[in-house]
Amino acid sequence: MASTASLEPFFAPRGVAVIGASSDPTKLGYGLARNLVQSNFKGAVHFVNPKGGSLFGRTVFPAISEAPDPLDLAILLIPAGAVPQTLQDCGQRGLRAVIIGSGGFRETGPQGAALEDECLQIARSFDMRLIGPNCIGLIDTHLPIDATFLPPPGPLPGDVAFISHSGAICAAVIDWARGHSFGLSLLVSLGNQVDVNETDVLQPIAEDPFTKVLTLYLEGIRDGRRFVSEAARITRQKPVIALKVGRFAGGRRAVASHTGAMAGQESAYNAAFRRAGVIRAETSEEMFDWARALAWCPPPKGRSIAILTNAGGPGVTAADALEIHGMHLAALSEAAIQQLQAELPPAASLANPVDMLASASPEQYARCLQILLDDPNVHGVMVILPPPPMFTAGAVARAIIPVIHHSEKPVIVALMGERLIQEAVEHLRAAHVPEYRFPERAASALAALTWRAEYLARLEQAPEPPLDLDRARARSLFQANRASLMPGAWLPVELLEELLACYGIQIPQSSLANSPAQAVEQARRLNFPVALKIASADIPHKSDVHGVLLNLWDENAVASGYAQIIENVNRAHPAAQIAGVTIQKMLPTGQDLILGALQDPQFGPLVMFGAGGVEAEQLKDTAFALAPMSAEEADYVIEGTWAGRRLSGYRNLPPADRAAVRGALLRFSFFAADFPELAEVEINPLRALTDGQGAFALDLRARLNA
Amino acid sequence: MASTASLEPFFAPRGVAVIGASSDPTKLGYGLARNLVQSNFKGAVHFVNPKGGSLFGRTVFPAISEAPDPLDLAILLIPAGAVPQTLQDCGQRGLRAVIIGSGGFRETGPQGAALEDECLQIARSFDMRLIGPNCIGLIDTHLPIDATFLPPPGPLPGDVAFISHSGAICAAVIDWARGHSFGLSLLVSLGNQVDVNETDVLQPIAEDPFTKVLTLYLEGIRDGRRFVSEAARITRQKPVIALKVGRFAGGRRAVASHTGAMAGQESAYNAAFRRAGVIRAETSEEMFDWARALAWCPPPKGRSIAILTNAGGPGVTAADALEIHGMHLAALSEAAIQQLQAELPPAASLANPVDMLASASPEQYARCLQILLDDPNVHGVMVILPPPPMFTAGAVARAIIPVIHHSEKPVIVALMGERLIQEAVEHLRAAHVPEYRFPERAASALAALTWRAEYLARLEQAPEPPLDLDRARARSLFQANRASLMPGAWLPVELLEELLACYGIQIPQSSLANSPAQAVEQARRLNFPVALKIASADIPHKSDVHGVLLNLWDENAVASGYAQIIENVNRAHPAAQIAGVTIQKMLPTGQDLILGALQDPQFGPLVMFGAGGVEAEQLKDTAFALAPMSAEEADYVIEGTWAGRRLSGYRNLPPADRAAVRGALLRFSFFAADFPELAEVEINPLRALTDGQGAFALDLRARLNA
Repeated sequence: MASTASLEPFFAPRGVAVIGASSDPTKLGYGLARNLVQSNFKGAVHFVNPKGGSLFGRTVFPAISEAPDPLDLAILLIPAGAVPQTLQDCGQRGLRAVIIGSGGFRETGPQGAALEDECLQIARSFDMRLIGPNCIGLIDTHLPIDATFLPPPGPLPGDVAFISHSGAICAAVIDWARGHSFGLSLLVSLGNQVDVNETDVLQPIAEDPFTKVLTLYLEGIRDGRRFVSEAARITRQKPVIALKVGRFAGGRRAVASHTGAMAGQESAYNAAFRRAGVIRAETSEEMFDWARALAWCPPPKGRSIAILTNAGGPGVTAADALEIHGMHLAALSEAAIQQLQAELPPAASLANPVDMLASASPEQYARCLQILLDDPNVHGVMVILPPPPMFTAGAVARAIIPVIHHSEKPVIVALMGERLIQEAVEHLRAAHVPEYRFPERAASALAALTWRAEYLARLEQAPEPPLDLDRARARSLFQANRASLMPGAWLPVELLEELLACYGIQIPQSSLANSPAQAVEQARRLNFPVALKIASADIPHKSDVHGVLLNLWDENAVASGYAQIIENVNRAHPAAQIAGVTIQKMLPTGQDLILGALQDPQFGPLVMFGAGGVEAEQLKDTAFALAPMSAEEADYVIEGTWAGRRLSGYRNLPPADRAAVRGALLRFSFFAADFPELAEVEINPLRALTDGQGAFALDLRARLNA
Repeated sequence: MASTASLEPFFAPRGVAVIGASSDPTKLGYGLARNLVQSNFKGAVHFVNPKGGSLFGRTVFPAISEAPDPLDLAILLIPAGAVPQTLQDCGQRGLRAVIIGSGGFRETGPQGAALEDECLQIARSFDMRLIGPNCIGLIDTHLPIDATFLPPPGPLPGDVAFISHSGAICAAVIDWARGHSFGLSLLVSLGNQVDVNETDVLQPIAEDPFTKVLTLYLEGIRDGRRFVSEAARITRQKPVIALKVGRFAGGRRAVASHTGAMAGQESAYNAAFRRAGVIRAETSEEMFDWARALAWCPPPKGRSIAILTNAGGPGVTAADALEIHGMHLAALSEAAIQQLQAELPPAASLANPVDMLASASPEQYARCLQILLDDPNVHGVMVILPPPPMFTAGAVARAIIPVIHHSEKPVIVALMGERLIQEAVEHLRAAHVPEYRFPERAASALAALTWRAEYLARLEQAPEPPLDLDRARARSLFQANRASLMPGAWLPVELLEELLACYGIQIPQSSLANSPAQAVEQARRLNFPVALKIASADIPHKSDVHGVLLNLWDENAVASGYAQIIENVNRAHPAAQIAGVTIQKMLPTGQDLILGALQDPQFGPLVMFGAGGVEAEQLKDTAFALAPMSAEEADYVIEGTWAGRRLSGYRNLPPADRAAVRGALLRFSFFAADFPELAEVEINPLRALTDGQGAFALDLRARLNA
């Protein structure tokens, strides 16, 4: 059970005690004491050490019990073995928030893990919250407080909060940020997360008025669904960017379905981040590049970007980079082109990119930028500024800042070079205008703004009416059959068909035959042509064992086909329990798709959509969403695959019943969400007939959790 | 006709004249004079200006004719209109190398282009070479000479040459490089390239003993095949990296085939760079990141990398980044693990990434690095160095440098942070050890080293025996028929079949029928089942107009099929000239592929390989190579696509005749190279039968150049 006690004492403590404060400058307990004193923290600071004495002009108390009020937060930098007793003391002293900076816990092996568990028990008994152990603490640059032991100076005050699973990354980010004059609002190092984890801190940090953007360095997520719902609430107000590492750490999933083979570890993370509105960065640089843009720029209303430059080469580079990031060059309005013409020499290029030529003055930069921002065809502007031959980049920066501040459209500056542009860098940073050293990085930041704008627009969409699902009947059917099934077993196909039918998924007419004669009789009843498929819970992939015959047109073919299938299966899989052969009405040809679902260890039911058939795995033409899906997510996965896009027709391929596929996908996602008892479920293929004729599950399988 | 006169005077001038030298500090002619004098150039420097006077203690000559020997190079910074007469004067003075820095030429419109052409005429008449116009000149940091007008200081001496189509990018790169202490050997700004272009300068720059790596900023390539052959000679000795921009500038090709639709502008560039051994960078930062690694590190013998870190988080990030870049974590040998164990505390992680813990000393860094480099399972090492809590990063850098210098394996350092690592940065740069601020960038640099190593290994492969091609017969067949064909017309299928047969490409038996009765008679002769296909040069995509019937098993089906096809085609395409219906022996099913070729405007014949059928375009499962292809390139495109990889079999898909496909691909590539008269050629599908049964061109089309 996660604790729900408030985290407020961590973020707004009236008094802080350092337990393990030391006067030895080589000790971490010295560094922490120094930082607390030097960081200008307005609350009370107390030092505790059995040795007593004084430190930075303050008395060192021999025990926490002697430290006076106010006191909301203790930070422990003492040997791991002493932590449990000290937590007891803290609890008795009335503390409800403790940061354990010390290492020597879970990261060192089973003994350390047991010690860590003991700490959690003690904390729970006092309704006390813990950050750490094995962390570097936290920083609030606005409160201000520096509760880390890192060498000074700490970060400059800023708009971006950083939450990290890794203390080493925190240290590197603080140093890097200081070196680049990149300000932070809050920084929290979570360490081993015995109690407080990445999800717990989202809300308190989002409530910080100085924080405009949250950035996360994640090595994993504990409780995926709770993260998604917490993050989704926050991203409506403030952007969240995550760098999730450990992509290749877990190896492949032990699953038997195509879905399992295709769902990389990261499919669920990607689907979860998309639903939560969390922007996923691929590199650390990208994360902080994006954070500045998101903190300082309004969201663009569209993807049409204007480029303003004083040289051709960088303009071409920028245009490429915009296209690579899914944006495009705005078609400038006639009015804008005329105004630019009046402003610029005849040899200037008025088409987008607008090349003002090397002679461009600061005033020309400012006036042309204003013209572009006034053009309704333009949703945002990238200004390119190589060291200008005739003027300083600083003068150009000063000239354009007021124009940018008065605009409701985002403007991002690519400052090219290093030494000759330093003055411009400083002006722009002070003015909160994002600047990047290369057009490629500026384009990537514009793309993050676009992603954010489109996410906010999606939130505005009206919800669709609910689907008609007979969930109660499906649940009772399942319960009635469950006892007869072994853990990890494949569901009998008949049961699965009934379950899916309760969710409104269409299945072609079929029946089970136990002899060639029965097969012929049933084929006659269904009308030719028919398909024959082996019916065996032991054989999930029927075609691999030649257990499927399609397009049988007469009674002889059915009778001999029955015998053939039984023989094939007996040869390939002698131990398989065979229930018989399913006779199924052949459907007309159509477009074949796969719908798959599995239980992701972090995020629960995850649905896959893609092209049907055995090659789906290899073509990687698949898309994922968490179950149950929203209508918007259904459209996203359909349009995100070629298998989905071609449903609307392509060359001589007639349009298929896209609406029926979309409906089946949504219904399937509710089924997957309602039956967490199923490790994997797969419809492969789902056949989409021509428009208006529906979509049918031709083959299906599901396996119970092991 | 390109000039072949030597470029030596540009790169090793004994004397240089600045024409347009000025004493007005706001003029470019002042900047150039200043840079020449201040750059410590050892040769003669002369100034020319009709106004005369003196500048930097030198006489200013009123005309070039008066400047004394030695004089090999003139640089012009005068109004465009005065350039032709001045070139005349230079020619008469005996100059054979001129840089025209002035703008006002082709970049300003038709008048400027005419002026530029006039300059070229004059230069040709004197066998004089021109760089520019509209460029910023050149720099050699070792000679040394700074023949640009950019504000000082210029770049530091280094190992990397930079060749650029854009002057503004040169200015930005010089400033950026100086700011990052990144040294350059040579820099050449090519401007409008009226004469000397990117290909011309490759050889002279590669001959510079100080240049270890060539970097190119390209907006296009003039003569693609010459670039490929020049660059291929150079990359055997020195790495070349290209940043090619203008990716989206050209719009789509005006072609009718699938190949045309799929071959983006960049397919040919990618194929050309691969053949030439040029490494293609996607961003400017990547190019210079890679350049340092290539200049300073030995090539790795494989893709197994060890990570040495003092913290877990950055190790995970680095492991991810390596995987993303196609490398993997080395499995350390037992011996190495035991040595590490003896070196490190018990809680250290000895699996790769090797996490020495935060307490790691400079000596531990050095000894563990040595252990990893000695492990035969390790091909290269990434050392991760966040600001270490107990030691300085500078001390670690000092400790590991001797180890790195004694190793034949590449070592790359990820220095995390900014201010606390500056001393380490300086040590490593001075020692020529590449360091990067984030593990992601370090991994990308290791990938560039790997690419280079694998390219050098490919060069060692023994050539394959030549193919038996009847090129003479194909050529004479083509010539005999050519006169009867209109420009842009589709070749008659029968002719194309004969031509491809000369190249040894297998075609299924077939014959043309002009009536249902003829069709039946021919089907009987070929044996059932047969396929019927409309024969019309006006219909390249037969199935789009329902002009194909497959799998016809009896005479009735053939007779009615004939009529059906003619009716379908008449309805869909009433104006088409119909030659009849082709009756073709049905082949067994197999794996269908597409072979396509088109004429790329820069690089000539370009061959595409991918999955056959109408959906090939959408799945983007295609790969490209220049024609004719090497055997290595054939394997590369086959293994680079799923369509090619599955030829070796997949699940219940039996192996197909991969050798026959490879042979057909090579033969097809020679055909495409030998017939530049054909704008596009396509075999779709090429059917690969089961192994040993061959690969047959089932449908083919080719169109003459318009």
